[in-house]
Amino acid sequence: MKVGIIMGSDSDLPIMGDAADFLQEMGIDYEVTIVSAHRTPDRLYEYASTARERGLSLLIAGAGGAAHLPGMAASITTLPVIGVPIRTKALGGVDSLYSIVQMPPGIPVAAMAINGAKNAAILAASILSITDADIAEKVAAYKQRLDQMVHGKIEKLEQMGHTAYLQEMGGK
Amino acid sequence: MKVGIIMGSDSDLPIMGDAADFLQEMGIDYEVTIVSAHRTPDRLYEYASTARERGLSLLIAGAGGAAHLPGMAASITTLPVIGVPIRTKALGGVDSLYSIVQMPPGIPVAAMAINGAKNAAILAASILSITDADIAEKVAAYKQRLDQMVHGKIEKLEQMGHTAYLQEMGGK
Amino acid sequence: MKVGIIMGSDSDLPIMGDAADFLQEMGIDYEVTIVSAHRTPDRLYEYASTARERGLSLLIAGAGGAAHLPGMAASITTLPVIGVPIRTKALGGVDSLYSIVQMPPGIPVAAMAINGAKNAAILAASILSITDADIAEKVAAYKQRLDQMVHGKIEKLEQMGHTAYLQEMGGK
Amino acid sequence: MKVGIIMGSDSDLPIMGDAADFLQEMGIDYEVTIVSAHRTPDRLYEYASTARERGLSLLIAGAGGAAHLPGMAASITTLPVIGVPIRTKALGGVDSLYSIVQMPPGIPVAAMAINGAKNAAILAASILSITDADIAEKVAAYKQRLDQMVHGKIEKLEQMGHTAYLQEMGGK
Amino acid sequence: MKVGIIMGSDSDLPIMGDAADFLQEMGIDYEVTIVSAHRTPDRLYEYASTARERGLSLLIAGAGGAAHLPGMAASITTLPVIGVPIRTKALGGVDSLYSIVQMPPGIPVAAMAINGAKNAAILAASILSITDADIAEKVAAYKQRLDQMVHGKIEKLEQMGHTAYLQEMGGK
Amino acid sequence: MKVGIIMGSDSDLPIMGDAADFLQEMGIDYEVTIVSAHRTPDRLYEYASTARERGLSLLIAGAGGAAHLPGMAASITTLPVIGVPIRTKALGGVDSLYSIVQMPPGIPVAAMAINGAKNAAILAASILSITDADIAEKVAAYKQRLDQMVHGKIEKLEQMGHTAYLQEMGGK
Amino acid sequence: MKVGIIMGSDSDLPIMGDAADFLQEMGIDYEVTIVSAHRTPDRLYEYASTARERGLSLLIAGAGGAAHLPGMAASITTLPVIGVPIRTKALGGVDSLYSIVQMPPGIPVAAMAINGAKNAAILAASILSITDADIAEKVAAYKQRLDQMVHGKIEKLEQMGHTAYLQEMGGK
Amino acid sequence: MKVGIIMGSDSDLPIMGDAADFLQEMGIDYEVTIVSAHRTPDRLYEYASTARERGLSLLIAGAGGAAHLPGMAASITTLPVIGVPIRTKALGGVDSLYSIVQMPPGIPVAAMAINGAKNAAILAASILSITDADIAEKVAAYKQRLDQMVHGKIEKLEQMGHTAYLQEMGGK
Repeated sequence: MKVGIIMGSDSDLPIMGDAADFLQEMGIDYEVTIVSAHRTPDRLYEYASTARERGLSLLIAGAGGAAHLPGMAASITTLPVIGVPIRTKALGGVDSLYSIVQMPPGIPVAAMAINGAKNAAILAASILSITDADIAEKVAAYKQRLDQMVHGKIEKLEQMGHTAYLQEMGGK
Repeated sequence: MKVGIIMGSDSDLPIMGDAADFLQEMGIDYEVTIVSAHRTPDRLYEYASTARERGLSLLIAGAGGAAHLPGMAASITTLPVIGVPIRTKALGGVDSLYSIVQMPPGIPVAAMAINGAKNAAILAASILSITDADIAEKVAAYKQRLDQMVHGKIEKLEQMGHTAYLQEMGGK
Repeated sequence: MKVGIIMGSDSDLPIMGDAADFLQEMGIDYEVTIVSAHRTPDRLYEYASTARERGLSLLIAGAGGAAHLPGMAASITTLPVIGVPIRTKALGGVDSLYSIVQMPPGIPVAAMAINGAKNAAILAASILSITDADIAEKVAAYKQRLDQMVHGKIEKLEQMGHTAYLQEMGGK
Repeated sequence: MKVGIIMGSDSDLPIMGDAADFLQEMGIDYEVTIVSAHRTPDRLYEYASTARERGLSLLIAGAGGAAHLPGMAASITTLPVIGVPIRTKALGGVDSLYSIVQMPPGIPVAAMAINGAKNAAILAASILSITDADIAEKVAAYKQRLDQMVHGKIEKLEQMGHTAYLQEMGGK
Repeated sequence: MKVGIIMGSDSDLPIMGDAADFLQEMGIDYEVTIVSAHRTPDRLYEYASTARERGLSLLIAGAGGAAHLPGMAASITTLPVIGVPIRTKALGGVDSLYSIVQMPPGIPVAAMAINGAKNAAILAASILSITDADIAEKVAAYKQRLDQMVHGKIEKLEQMGHTAYLQEMGGK
Repeated sequence: MKVGIIMGSDSDLPIMGDAADFLQEMGIDYEVTIVSAHRTPDRLYEYASTARERGLSLLIAGAGGAAHLPGMAASITTLPVIGVPIRTKALGGVDSLYSIVQMPPGIPVAAMAINGAKNAAILAASILSITDADIAEKVAAYKQRLDQMVHGKIEKLEQMGHTAYLQEMGGK
Repeated sequence: MKVGIIMGSDSDLPIMGDAADFLQEMGIDYEVTIVSAHRTPDRLYEYASTARERGLSLLIAGAGGAAHLPGMAASITTLPVIGVPIRTKALGGVDSLYSIVQMPPGIPVAAMAINGAKNAAILAASILSITDADIAEKVAAYKQRLDQMVHGKIEKLEQMGHTAYLQEMGGK
Repeated sequence: MKVGIIMGSDSDLPIMGDAADFLQEMGIDYEVTIVSAHRTPDRLYEYASTARERGLSLLIAGAGGAAHLPGMAASITTLPVIGVPIRTKALGGVDSLYSIVQMPPGIPVAAMAINGAKNAAILAASILSITDADIAEKVAAYKQRLDQMVHGKIEKLEQMGHTAYLQEMGGK
């Protein structure tokens, strides 16, 4: 089981790298590369149409603006495609979000929050966990660590009071 | 393998029924019920926390307005959750979409287009197809039927010309 | 010189037909067909990559929602592509507009107003008029007819007064 | 009478601290803690369902993005819940606002302005003032101080003229 | 304990009537009248500045467009003010919502969903329930009835199946 | 003193007629005609550049979509220009509003609400009232009639109760 | 003839000062002060209801967020009111704009661009110019200076070429 | 064949310069100047109405806010006009985009992405390439260079891995 992480441009890598890092942490195999729907359409066809036979289980695709990469990938492969709308300067990423999420009947893309690359990887893990008990355990453990981390902060905040806590955060 | 389809209110059923119908067509087991994050929070906890052990593989959750159902389900279960933003009268469903898609790191929801319940089911099938060759075949066949349907229309349009085609559609 | 008019679905034909009708009126050769970026990606590649050699001068592409057709066509051909964002029920077409207009550097699409198919054809005529004096004349004549039509209404309104004019319109 | 101030993450504390500070200033009892709808759903149930019996009079809940905390708290307790939408980088907080304010019939949340934590506390004081003459007096006194502060600035501006006043502000 | 329900125009009454009906159902005293911030500013001052002494506990104010009524009432009285943004034809009520919710520090308004007049009354009851055990009981009973109503539908849906249920709804 | 009312198309007349009707009612001289910034740019120049010398005091200009008429008129004449954004099907008139209100420094347009043609005429009357005591009186009288009309409804509502009043409105 | 410039808070002065500066430049009498609709409602009534008798000709009112100042002033006085929406951090000023421009029939406010305080003063001058030939001349002269300033830049740009011009701007 | 690049103000030059630079690179003749629809309306008429006879083939017009320049140019000339919406501080350029793209039937403007000046030039080249084989070749070569540049990055990313690549970018 392997996840393909693709993005339209290396300028998306600071965001999309989060997806790779999480899969690494979960011990899930992945590959990261650049596939531009607009600048390398041939490569997109090639990449998406061979994804299943090359052993990929699903694709994570990040793109910004008129973000066609996730939707076009989904139109070519029958693997699930998770789309990450990248934030844009002019419109905050609402353009990326609409371009990714408003897919027509027949060709779904699973849209994440704007810049939500880490969640794309968590969803990928969760999808693989349906039939892989090992990954299921790791995802459950991850959620518990989240829960514990929050509880650590709760304890600290309740002990210190909010004013001291804020000061320590370098707050306000 | 079974899909749980839930929605906040029976007023969402005319949309969410599309998801059930598609799974039916694919021969994928499913259940349809109402779980309201706001009106039946206990039931939501119960439903989501037992989903995996009851044999569900993933959840499809539709909700409108301050649409908390998909996100809350995702916070309770480790199964993948697909969220369908229901169109709203005042804001067209942009409220539903933001409430579903803008999840914080750690708890992803796979957002579909506004009213995109059919795509939720197609994505579910596609997810199950990763490890189920039978479903994979059915999804591929479905995509081919889509393609054929479009080609049927293409042929007709090119033969009739757009004016006659429009007249037959009862158009313009 | 021939214009290719394509659209994602025959449900866009009542809008996109306006483009064909205008070209007809101008005596400019055209073809109308369906090419779905999402449902027939192979056909899109085929259509766009052979457009220039088949004698097309430019493409007019209409699409709604996550409207990838104009942008993908523009990524495959070097001919100019004019994009028509189709109005959508949920978001009024702002999704279609963003998906069409917010193209990345390198791959422009000439975006029209939402549902602005007629203007796509007028722009096409105007583009062809750069090197075709005959079309240039026809476009100028069309603009003059527009001007005259407005002047006819002006005269009538100033003669009748706005109250009578409104009554005749079946107004208010 | 005691107010519970909760937030989804300690990153919301620089904003939500304003609410605590105002209650402190008014001499109203309060507690501040972290309750994440998404990361600690069990804790949310526990916190909200015991709020009334633990002597809380109302809840102030801050959250950003798909901001489910205020609405979920309101679905579990019958105490009034005041929601503070936290500003977000991508969408400015319009996502937080819609997720908080667009609650379905039956489960209201009192939405404040984006980042309006101080106003949440003022509203809380105002609510408690309905039956507590002492708090009523303090709220009235606060409003008068606001009025006086404005009048101080008015006097200064009218004496100095706007140019000098702006210079003193370090303005323009 | 009495609730004042005010609105800018009688055209808001079909929406705001819901608030009155709910208070009636809960046995909470109320008055309904028209106070226009823009057309009757003197009346607004009079109404809001005497509200507390006339025995009102809180105000529910509905307004659309540049919806100043709730905010201006809140600037004059120290009672809590709940604002109901009325849907508008051009902008869906987003104008009403922003005008009501984006209040500056010092003068909060508790904003409800667009057209959320019923929720305004439920929040009012919930506020009064803080110190009134009788109302607290009634609100809890109401929430339970909501829960039961949903459970009735759940049972019916699970018995009938979604196709039959939809047909009975006059569905699809 | 005379007011020029212009609009881009006779399809705007059902809205813009309200402006003429109000001026008529106030006994203020006016003219109504069609001037299209886009279809009759010469006429726009002619109309706006001669407006002052032809005895016009100010212009009211209505336009929809890429609504250039008010701004272009304001760039040509030094008379005040009041702009009325006409509602549009796709975007509700937010396009018209932005095109009218977001004028650059140097060339103001006084923007009204979407479809706010009547208010344009009231503002015109109010502007003329600065130096014309007769119009000032009429505007004051109009505001009083508004106030009285509201008070008539208030009395009726308070006598009948909201339920009976709604029934008479044909309500709910 | 005198113009009253008011604003909700001294934090608006860096923007609203532009209006005063322009009137100064035009030799038009003005006063600048703070009037908060929300924090000093009594002062607002006093200020607006005596404006005409104190010799003011029109009001310029700046406000941000739930910007009620211009609309409330307009509801109290029959003088023309020009509203300046102040930019806000969360929503860019779209909240201020909607709160100012979407006034109901009967009570117009002349809305300027977001942060468009200078244009408010130019509009004020233009309004006063209707009956004051001296101001009319000054406004015309100002427009000519604008035109000349642009022509100066045009000449320079055409002489230097865009690359050199950009370098001198410290550009790119 | 020559392209006219115009903009409303020299503050747009840092963006619009990209268009000139690309045409330079392609060896296409061009001129760059300032034409303000609002500040120099006479110049706009002069410029647009003589464009064709002065040998221009098409216009590229950049403008921000109530961006009338592209639309007004298109209403005066019959040459194709490409519009570049300039980003604005308050609204991100959505105002510029709507003002440019939402043109009425009869007068099209080819809208680019917000700040998309380079794409305007690429589209211009693509338009000229219809009948100019030399330009067609250059545009195809440019697209190939784009493709190669992406492939260079792909190779590098696949060799280095995303972590090292990000570090080299000075990333994260």
